[in-house]
Amino acid sequence: MVQDRYERGLEKMIQVDGKAGLRAIEDLKEIAPELGRYLVEFPFGDIYSREGLDLPTRELLAIAALTAMGNAEPQLRVHIHAALNVGCTREQVVEVMLQMIVYAGFPLAINALYTAKDVFDKREGKGKR
Amino acid sequence: MVQDRYERGLEKMIQVDGKAGLRAIEDLKEIAPELGRYLVEFPFGDIYSREGLDLPTRELLAIAALTAMGNAEPQLRVHIHAALNVGCTREQVVEVMLQMIVYAGFPLAINALYTAKDVFDKREGKGKR
Amino acid sequence: MVQDRYERGLEKMIQVDGKAGLRAIEDLKEIAPELGRYLVEFPFGDIYSREGLDLPTRELLAIAALTAMGNAEPQLRVHIHAALNVGCTREQVVEVMLQMIVYAGFPLAINALYTAKDVFDKREGKGKR
Amino acid sequence: MVQDRYERGLEKMIQVDGKAGLRAIEDLKEIAPELGRYLVEFPFGDIYSREGLDLPTRELLAIAALTAMGNAEPQLRVHIHAALNVGCTREQVVEVMLQMIVYAGFPLAINALYTAKDVFDKREGKGKR
Amino acid sequence: MVQDRYERGLEKMIQVDGKAGLRAIEDLKEIAPELGRYLVEFPFGDIYSREGLDLPTRELLAIAALTAMGNAEPQLRVHIHAALNVGCTREQVVEVMLQMIVYAGFPLAINALYTAKDVFDKREGKGKR
Amino acid sequence: MVQDRYERGLEKMIQVDGKAGLRAIEDLKEIAPELGRYLVEFPFGDIYSREGLDLPTRELLAIAALTAMGNAEPQLRVHIHAALNVGCTREQVVEVMLQMIVYAGFPLAINALYTAKDVFDKREGKGKR
Repeated sequence: MVQDRYERGLEKMIQVDGKAGLRAIEDLKEIAPELGRYLVEFPFGDIYSREGLDLPTRELLAIAALTAMGNAEPQLRVHIHAALNVGCTREQVVEVMLQMIVYAGFPLAINALYTAKDVFDKREGKGKR
Repeated sequence: MVQDRYERGLEKMIQVDGKAGLRAIEDLKEIAPELGRYLVEFPFGDIYSREGLDLPTRELLAIAALTAMGNAEPQLRVHIHAALNVGCTREQVVEVMLQMIVYAGFPLAINALYTAKDVFDKREGKGKR
Repeated sequence: MVQDRYERGLEKMIQVDGKAGLRAIEDLKEIAPELGRYLVEFPFGDIYSREGLDLPTRELLAIAALTAMGNAEPQLRVHIHAALNVGCTREQVVEVMLQMIVYAGFPLAINALYTAKDVFDKREGKGKR
Repeated sequence: MVQDRYERGLEKMIQVDGKAGLRAIEDLKEIAPELGRYLVEFPFGDIYSREGLDLPTRELLAIAALTAMGNAEPQLRVHIHAALNVGCTREQVVEVMLQMIVYAGFPLAINALYTAKDVFDKREGKGKR
Repeated sequence: MVQDRYERGLEKMIQVDGKAGLRAIEDLKEIAPELGRYLVEFPFGDIYSREGLDLPTRELLAIAALTAMGNAEPQLRVHIHAALNVGCTREQVVEVMLQMIVYAGFPLAINALYTAKDVFDKREGKGKR
Repeated sequence: MVQDRYERGLEKMIQVDGKAGLRAIEDLKEIAPELGRYLVEFPFGDIYSREGLDLPTRELLAIAALTAMGNAEPQLRVHIHAALNVGCTREQVVEVMLQMIVYAGFPLAINALYTAKDVFDKREGKGKR
């Protein structure tokens, strides 16, 4: 069952993030070997594997939170990719960020939109990550 | 057209918040008379009136952002009511908050769940706000 | 000169805060006896005693920062009192908070306005603190 | 092994928090039944069970983070109790909060000190929680 | 009157920001075509056009808030330029940031001072933006 | 005695930060000449010179707070160096960051771990700063 949780999480992580999640785990393996297990098991194996919200909604929620926090640009970037990977449109990603003006002000929403623009450009120029 | 924007916003605000939005405007009218107009026109007349995301999704996004910010409990409360008013289920509200553990940690998610529990209880005891 | 710094700070603190600052120092003296010295010496003896900005401007800046942080309501309250004590008008206090909608969103600005309304009411009912 | 993780976490949670952790789980069981499992398994079963830092140090670190975040007063309160439960002194708790002035400013440190004072008073008046 | 609001905002934006505001609007036009209208109409047409605080004071307030938030460096940069554009001195900009040590701690104030130094250097080397 | 406070602070600062603290003071001397005095006197002369917590513990607490704030990467970097300078191990630094997942979520902890990895690599390549 532990194995189940890890395997379920890994499958979910690859479905959502493609290789981006694996890359972070790999990068940090030397200094924090258990981080990979935690990241696969808890966010993906426990939370993202829950029913009740579909993956595209979950990714828009992640974008909302990370835009409003305004201090985790690398993860915002990962979740913009993820949103598009699981079927959200660019228009929906932008729409979430515009809504965040209301709760978190113009600066954080505008900075998130710059990040979105950069992700959109990269995906266009280079094919899917 | 200015009138349109205000009227469109007012209609949207009442649809989403019931009387909670009007109450804030009324409470603060004496010291900030234009706040009501700003609140109706910009968040509701401009942002919430946009197409591209339906109202239940917008309310879940608001809950995600306010949970992750962790410093706006009264507005979180308003948006839990609003989510239920526009057709979200309690399970979806809880689901959003559980997901926020991943991005914003256990304390803010748990505090939001306490707020949700209190709103659910109040709505049960007292009928719809 | 140490004495100067403490005395200069104490005079400044009383000028700005009336007795509110002294009360915090008194309240916490038992568990943190040196806090009073730090609070008098650094914020008041060093920073508030600097030239370059007058006290009313400094108090509006404090209100701006504390509104945008959204997690220090007791200090926001102290600085609304302080702003009025050193000659700012209620209209200026409200104006600062409305401006914060732009950088920090509607919820934190609205919560600050509720705090301002409460401070204004208290000062009216009870005379100057 | 899943069972191990849960049991190890539960034991650790009771050691650290006494009954406070169990109470939160109980309070929220109706709306978020799996929260209890997550809270026991991940923070306590995975993180707090790691070697490399002793429990008193971990509790001081929790107090540092929650003081600097400034938006999770209930959890700060829990961790002040926990710090004292696992052998930290009141002086150490206060010392951590005074240090936080440097990174997070006077308001959040002072608010944390008020919380500490209240916890200390409650423990004195009522015996150990 | 809608036109008035937009035109009033545009005039105010150019007065305050020179071309920086227009550039952001232009950069993001492709993905968020209405952002430009929102930015001109609400912050500039509604808020900055209010009486009650002069523009130099408004810019110092913006710098206070953005320094204390610590997560919007591009906008801090824009508002340092804007402050100098509307008649604030470098000394006043620095003074605001030093005051923020009190509410938000040394790290965010120091990082803002580095940003100020960079803006001052750029304006010297390249003439007015 | 003023001199004492400055000298005591300077000695402490050099002991903890090596030359990093002096560099920040030097960089900002032109625009904020008194910052150096404040930084030496208050954080180092007053706070870090207090008894009650040893320096390695203080540095781990700084890392906890800065990881959880997530908006002061340059200072996090300085304090990772400082922790290692005063005798903390790399494992302890990593351990603190992993614990922060619980209170502040995965993104900020992961970003801090990337910073730690970079500092560790730089120290290896270049010897002690």
